[in-house]
Amino acid sequence: MKKSQSKFSSMLLGTALVASVASGATNELSKVMKERGLSEIDVIRAAKTYNPTGVKDEYVVFSSGGQSGQVIVYGVPSMRILKYIGVFTPEPWQGYGFDKDSLEVLRQGNIRGREINWGDTHHPALSEIDGKYDGKWLAINDKANPRIAIIDLADFETKQIVPNPVFKSDHGGAFFTPNSEYIIEASQYAAPFDNNYHPIEEYKETYRGGVTMWKFDNKIGRIMPDDSFTIEFPPYHQDLSDAGKGISYGWGFTNSFNTEMYTGGIEVGMPPNEAGMSRNDTDFLHVYNWEKLAKLAENPKNVKIINNHKVVPMDIAVKNNALFLIPEPKSPHGVDVDPTGQYLIVCGKLDTHASVYDFKKIKKLIDNKEYAGKDPYGIPILDMKKSLHGQLELGLGPLHNQYSPVDGEVYTSLYVDSQVVKWNFKDLKVIDKENVHYNIGHLAGMEGKSADPQGDYIIALNKLAIDRFQNVGPLHPQNHQLIDIKGKTMDLLVDMPLPLGEPHQAVAIRASKLHPHVRYKMGTNSKTGKIHKGKTLAGEERIERDGKNVTVYATLVRSHINPERITVNKGDKVTIHMTNLERAQDETHGFTIDNYDIHGSLEPGETTTLEFTADVEGVFPYYCTEFCSALHLEMMGYMMVKDPDKKYVSAQKLKMKTMSPEELKAEYDKTVAVNNATDAVIQSVVKFLKDNKFQDHKVVANLVTDALDQYNKIPEQKKKADEALKAGDTEKAILFENMIWQLMVKTADVGIRAKDTLVRKISTKQSAAAARGEVAFAEGGCNGCHVIGKVSSGPDLTGVLQRHENGEQWVSNFILDPESMYDDPYVKGMIDYFNLKMPNQHMSEEETKDIIEYLKWIEENANLF
Amino acid sequence: MKKSQSKFSSMLLGTALVASVASGATNELSKVMKERGLSEIDVIRAAKTYNPTGVKDEYVVFSSGGQSGQVIVYGVPSMRILKYIGVFTPEPWQGYGFDKDSLEVLRQGNIRGREINWGDTHHPALSEIDGKYDGKWLAINDKANPRIAIIDLADFETKQIVPNPVFKSDHGGAFFTPNSEYIIEASQYAAPFDNNYHPIEEYKETYRGGVTMWKFDNKIGRIMPDDSFTIEFPPYHQDLSDAGKGISYGWGFTNSFNTEMYTGGIEVGMPPNEAGMSRNDTDFLHVYNWEKLAKLAENPKNVKIINNHKVVPMDIAVKNNALFLIPEPKSPHGVDVDPTGQYLIVCGKLDTHASVYDFKKIKKLIDNKEYAGKDPYGIPILDMKKSLHGQLELGLGPLHNQYSPVDGEVYTSLYVDSQVVKWNFKDLKVIDKENVHYNIGHLAGMEGKSADPQGDYIIALNKLAIDRFQNVGPLHPQNHQLIDIKGKTMDLLVDMPLPLGEPHQAVAIRASKLHPHVRYKMGTNSKTGKIHKGKTLAGEERIERDGKNVTVYATLVRSHINPERITVNKGDKVTIHMTNLERAQDETHGFTIDNYDIHGSLEPGETTTLEFTADVEGVFPYYCTEFCSALHLEMMGYMMVKDPDKKYVSAQKLKMKTMSPEELKAEYDKTVAVNNATDAVIQSVVKFLKDNKFQDHKVVANLVTDALDQYNKIPEQKKKADEALKAGDTEKAILFENMIWQLMVKTADVGIRAKDTLVRKISTKQSAAAARGEVAFAEGGCNGCHVIGKVSSGPDLTGVLQRHENGEQWVSNFILDPESMYDDPYVKGMIDYFNLKMPNQHMSEEETKDIIEYLKWIEENANLF
Repeated sequence: MKKSQSKFSSMLLGTALVASVASGATNELSKVMKERGLSEIDVIRAAKTYNPTGVKDEYVVFSSGGQSGQVIVYGVPSMRILKYIGVFTPEPWQGYGFDKDSLEVLRQGNIRGREINWGDTHHPALSEIDGKYDGKWLAINDKANPRIAIIDLADFETKQIVPNPVFKSDHGGAFFTPNSEYIIEASQYAAPFDNNYHPIEEYKETYRGGVTMWKFDNKIGRIMPDDSFTIEFPPYHQDLSDAGKGISYGWGFTNSFNTEMYTGGIEVGMPPNEAGMSRNDTDFLHVYNWEKLAKLAENPKNVKIINNHKVVPMDIAVKNNALFLIPEPKSPHGVDVDPTGQYLIVCGKLDTHASVYDFKKIKKLIDNKEYAGKDPYGIPILDMKKSLHGQLELGLGPLHNQYSPVDGEVYTSLYVDSQVVKWNFKDLKVIDKENVHYNIGHLAGMEGKSADPQGDYIIALNKLAIDRFQNVGPLHPQNHQLIDIKGKTMDLLVDMPLPLGEPHQAVAIRASKLHPHVRYKMGTNSKTGKIHKGKTLAGEERIERDGKNVTVYATLVRSHINPERITVNKGDKVTIHMTNLERAQDETHGFTIDNYDIHGSLEPGETTTLEFTADVEGVFPYYCTEFCSALHLEMMGYMMVKDPDKKYVSAQKLKMKTMSPEELKAEYDKTVAVNNATDAVIQSVVKFLKDNKFQDHKVVANLVTDALDQYNKIPEQKKKADEALKAGDTEKAILFENMIWQLMVKTADVGIRAKDTLVRKISTKQSAAAARGEVAFAEGGCNGCHVIGKVSSGPDLTGVLQRHENGEQWVSNFILDPESMYDDPYVKGMIDYFNLKMPNQHMSEEETKDIIEYLKWIEENANLF
Repeated sequence: MKKSQSKFSSMLLGTALVASVASGATNELSKVMKERGLSEIDVIRAAKTYNPTGVKDEYVVFSSGGQSGQVIVYGVPSMRILKYIGVFTPEPWQGYGFDKDSLEVLRQGNIRGREINWGDTHHPALSEIDGKYDGKWLAINDKANPRIAIIDLADFETKQIVPNPVFKSDHGGAFFTPNSEYIIEASQYAAPFDNNYHPIEEYKETYRGGVTMWKFDNKIGRIMPDDSFTIEFPPYHQDLSDAGKGISYGWGFTNSFNTEMYTGGIEVGMPPNEAGMSRNDTDFLHVYNWEKLAKLAENPKNVKIINNHKVVPMDIAVKNNALFLIPEPKSPHGVDVDPTGQYLIVCGKLDTHASVYDFKKIKKLIDNKEYAGKDPYGIPILDMKKSLHGQLELGLGPLHNQYSPVDGEVYTSLYVDSQVVKWNFKDLKVIDKENVHYNIGHLAGMEGKSADPQGDYIIALNKLAIDRFQNVGPLHPQNHQLIDIKGKTMDLLVDMPLPLGEPHQAVAIRASKLHPHVRYKMGTNSKTGKIHKGKTLAGEERIERDGKNVTVYATLVRSHINPERITVNKGDKVTIHMTNLERAQDETHGFTIDNYDIHGSLEPGETTTLEFTADVEGVFPYYCTEFCSALHLEMMGYMMVKDPDKKYVSAQKLKMKTMSPEELKAEYDKTVAVNNATDAVIQSVVKFLKDNKFQDHKVVANLVTDALDQYNKIPEQKKKADEALKAGDTEKAILFENMIWQLMVKTADVGIRAKDTLVRKISTKQSAAAARGEVAFAEGGCNGCHVIGKVSSGPDLTGVLQRHENGEQWVSNFILDPESMYDDPYVKGMIDYFNLKMPNQHMSEEETKDIIEYLKWIEENANLF
């Protein structure tokens, strides 16, 4: 029986490790399944989405943060959220909008002088080369206050915000053209392009829609507003857009609703907008040649300047054969160009069909000037049937499409049916449907709208969660559901609640395409990428006064802020330039002064500026807001704001006990002795690291650099301590010796991590049995008393197999039946020494064998423990 | 072989479902493990943390959001973040700080008149009865700007913010006393209690620490500032606190660092604070009798009034035997009272020991007035050794403790060693250690600091993530690691990145103890819990003018805002009261007016107010910011701001084509016909629901209520349509008929969901074989053509087993070898009809048998499809 189990479990678990596994693991799994009510398929889905500690994800998703105004970054398939990036809303953790440099970016987004402190982010877009993601820049729109933001994927920070000068809302952007030449931003609710009042009764005459083509410099990652232009559209409510590629390169597509131009509402005795805006069976897909229009826009004759921005009027576009309309199913959402560029799929949420347009047919109609009519604004209309490859009934509420690497395959979201449908847009056949929970809006494939879709997964962005999660009040989280599409049919794997904002759309990219850095060149202003004018190195810290202007050049490093005291006069304008001197990855320092509503987040090498007027008198602690080291609480100082018009009376001095010279000398000696002992430990670690060629292992070498960074600060402190002692100031000498100890603690903190990492890198490879033995050793509780390489509550087991004649047998007997050996003189001695008897842990023979293998492995690597 | 496999897999997978499972699932698991490089133990850990869709968590964790200023809510063991609650930082998704009502809460947190728009949240606390969590209120402190916020766990919203009137920073709070009588808030960095300038040279004389005891009303969930008081402490930097319980009830404990009273720093030629503040080997634990002090504070003779707040001076506390000090290990972090109240564990981060104090011993020393000395401020010091139960060396950097339900067991975080250590504080023995990644600060057990700790899990709140996650720029996420403590030894299960803020501490509660509601009583102001003065029901919508004040009473319901047009004059003060008329769970509506930097989030039944001055001329769309229904894009309107001092010229009217009466009549007839057809579908669903007693199933009944809510609005619209038709306005009649259609779409959306839910509730239980058959049917791709209950690309299979003689055999043959039956006349007919041949999907005999069982189950329930 046992044999066939082993064979089966090796087949089942499929790893070399379990060639002759005991039944422990399978029993354990069985127990967990029973306790947690999991089925077989649940366990498979768990395995498909679980990342063991330290294992990274295959894809990175950038999701809009909806009304949070931010961008959400998460990993697939683990569905763990990695970061919220501050974009349109101030974000104190990142210092975004709380330091001067990021505030300058945020305030680029002012509209007509008004500060806007939030956004409704909708459509993230990744920059492209040849229609494929290059992993460099992310653009996203704000629907509520029409703007586009640019995020740098080298540091995941927002670098630019550009308000739209003519729109009053937007929706159909951001979308990059295939070589990131432009970013498309389409308006949503038609409104006058100028900033004047126009009565709703003159809607058709004075309200307009449009598409802004934002010129983008993909090298520096910035929109160039002066080289950008807007194409005027009729006052239909434009919705989503996409850029053509391949055969449709140079063309843009934007769909629309409310081609009825209905304007409600109940208060004038008419039905609300929702009724009038969906009266017609079809709306209009806008087809425009942006390449041609960009050239036209260069000539001032072809543009109107509105709010200092170039607008190409409809009639100019029409006259130059650059703007057309095609009927499309009622109230469409997505217009999605396929990877080749030949096909466009449009789904109308109030129509059960998907409509597949063939750009070759569209182009032929355009070239032949074969029009079915004109709209009220004179734009030529192409015949819908003649433009179509075909239509297919998918279900209720089809919205958006994502492509698969398999030719012709596409995934479409069904809002009302709450399903994802997989179908073939060439053969026009449904392949599979999968239920989601509930009311899916967008869906995100892996690079599923690029020229190089990866397949693997679809994420359903559901609008309602209802009963999916633990109730957290009337406002529910959203729900992104991960669907495995690698098999013949779709398989819904897991739910991910979204804890902040209603994410609208998401784009996914292979993690291997992203190469963010982990530190800045020392003194960098991360918002401009240039060296900050406030850059301050160690030793350059100072406070400068110029009348009522106080400028502080400060540094932060584990674990102090320099300076630690700042005194200013009430009314002074205070500017603090801060530089984080760290080089170690993840060693961020934060900085705030209580009550002054400012906060900076400084990543290694970053310089930033805080600015405020010291308008409130008093004493205000400042501190590092990151738990940056064991001494982080001590990383603080005081700002004191004095009223220059007030007279202060000195406080009566408290009498404190002072130490005698003898007591001081004793403390000094003790402190030095502790330092020497600590240094001996550090030196032993250093020797170990050197002996074992730490420099051959990059991750260890990085840790050693970080540790030495701390250690190398010691001689300077030692010099100060010795000088103070020489000058007879024992008190001061003690304090500097204490500083040495702090540096040693920080050295040891990182140094020990380096050593442990190195041990695992250079030890011999564990056999499968030894690996199981290590687990058994831990799970059997052996490590409660026995610490490898160290005498603990029980003896160190390094070398135990050598300590006894016929050692393996001896140890095995002792594990299996310790009681019988309590009278053995050696064992008796140990019992006396540790005042503890080795208990019977009821290990099986198999486990005991494995533990022996583990002990052998320890002996092989005895030098490392 | 097959037999032993089956037996084994049933043991392994441990569910009734797999009594005779085929090898499909085990092969699949094996494949996934290979592809993803997972070991056996990984799969077990995956199973321990995976929640299938819709399955809820056992525990809910409330974590501070660090410098995000918010509170983070997540589930255990799935480690999915469910919500960020807006607390000290404006949060637009929730409308927090963007609507008038929440802004009133946020602005309670102003300090000395300054608006503070962020916080550094540190220590969340759950309200208690008898030292056990009652699931009613959550309190949290802001370290940067000393304040306490109260969150209502009935709706997860912040209801109150109370700034500390005397502290300039805080840390050691919030902590509830055992019956939520008080919330403890301890200061951190000593500073003058008054608001004046005091030079750092007079630190010892004029700077002070302390503990504020905030009186709490657990019934209404509000702090009562007038009944609260502060206990003055010496200018040591106080750190964490805890309240006694059981034998130590009535006492509070607060530890400290910098009892050296050192004040740095480099700029005055001295070592930085980090060196001077950790010079002494011990610091002081403050032990105070808050029960006695509360009574003392009632007498004005015993208090000083500072900034309108009662402060009990140190000498009064000492004179009344209510304040003592005990030496504690260097720079401690946690002071954690055990579930019985007898023991307190203090760990000093710069000492390798945990110190276990015995309150019985402390009390005896106090009662006997047995003092070891006095501190410079005259506070009696108790002897450390005489107060201790004992000490145990745990490792480097011990910080915080969480208790287990097993008597004497406790878990402690080791910052420098990056470990959690499990030990027994009575026997003083280490039991187990687990590595974490990296530098753990706090740790959170399940109710691990209450009188009723649950065990099960420990969460390690790590300060550095370094290499754990996909790189997302120099600012890394934090990492909370879940550790299973149910076994003999700890087992690290999974990593959770924290995407926003550096969470400092977390508290966990059984999910079953929380009972939040899902909707408000109609017209509720969620911030006060009372009916909002702006409550507006359907039909009461209006715009009122009073000089330059414009007040709008608006409603939101799927899918329109009423009114849809608002015209005001430039300079008008606009107040918009909005009520969400929905009753359906999760039907939140958002509201914004472009460019005006306002946003409201209205949960079902909620009323809130937006307020602004219309200081910018122009046309501004407003819209619902939640994807609330298929018509959500149409849920919009326009605010038009007119300059009263300007003359406007009317635009020249565009000539639009109009429809002939005949064309209008035809459209009207078509619209009515569509409505009738749609209604027929709805009626069939209604009949199905009624026939099958939907009201017996609460979840279905709720959906039906929601659907009828929409459907019942139809007669009113029908009346309007008929009136318009009678009056000869066919155009208007069409529009109202269209509104009827919208209501029908929304009815159907929810109604179909109700039907599907009901089917699963009332169908007969599937046999294991039928359940496998359903999976095989889907995974084999059968459902690509065959939709149960419907003719699709292939015939409906309901009743297929009855359609053929010897039906089971016939269907089985056809699945296994369809090609051989293409010439069968019946099959031929089908091929002609569907223009498709049934393909060979290569199903196994076992799968085919299961599919037959599935088809039998369908026939049993044929009436439901």
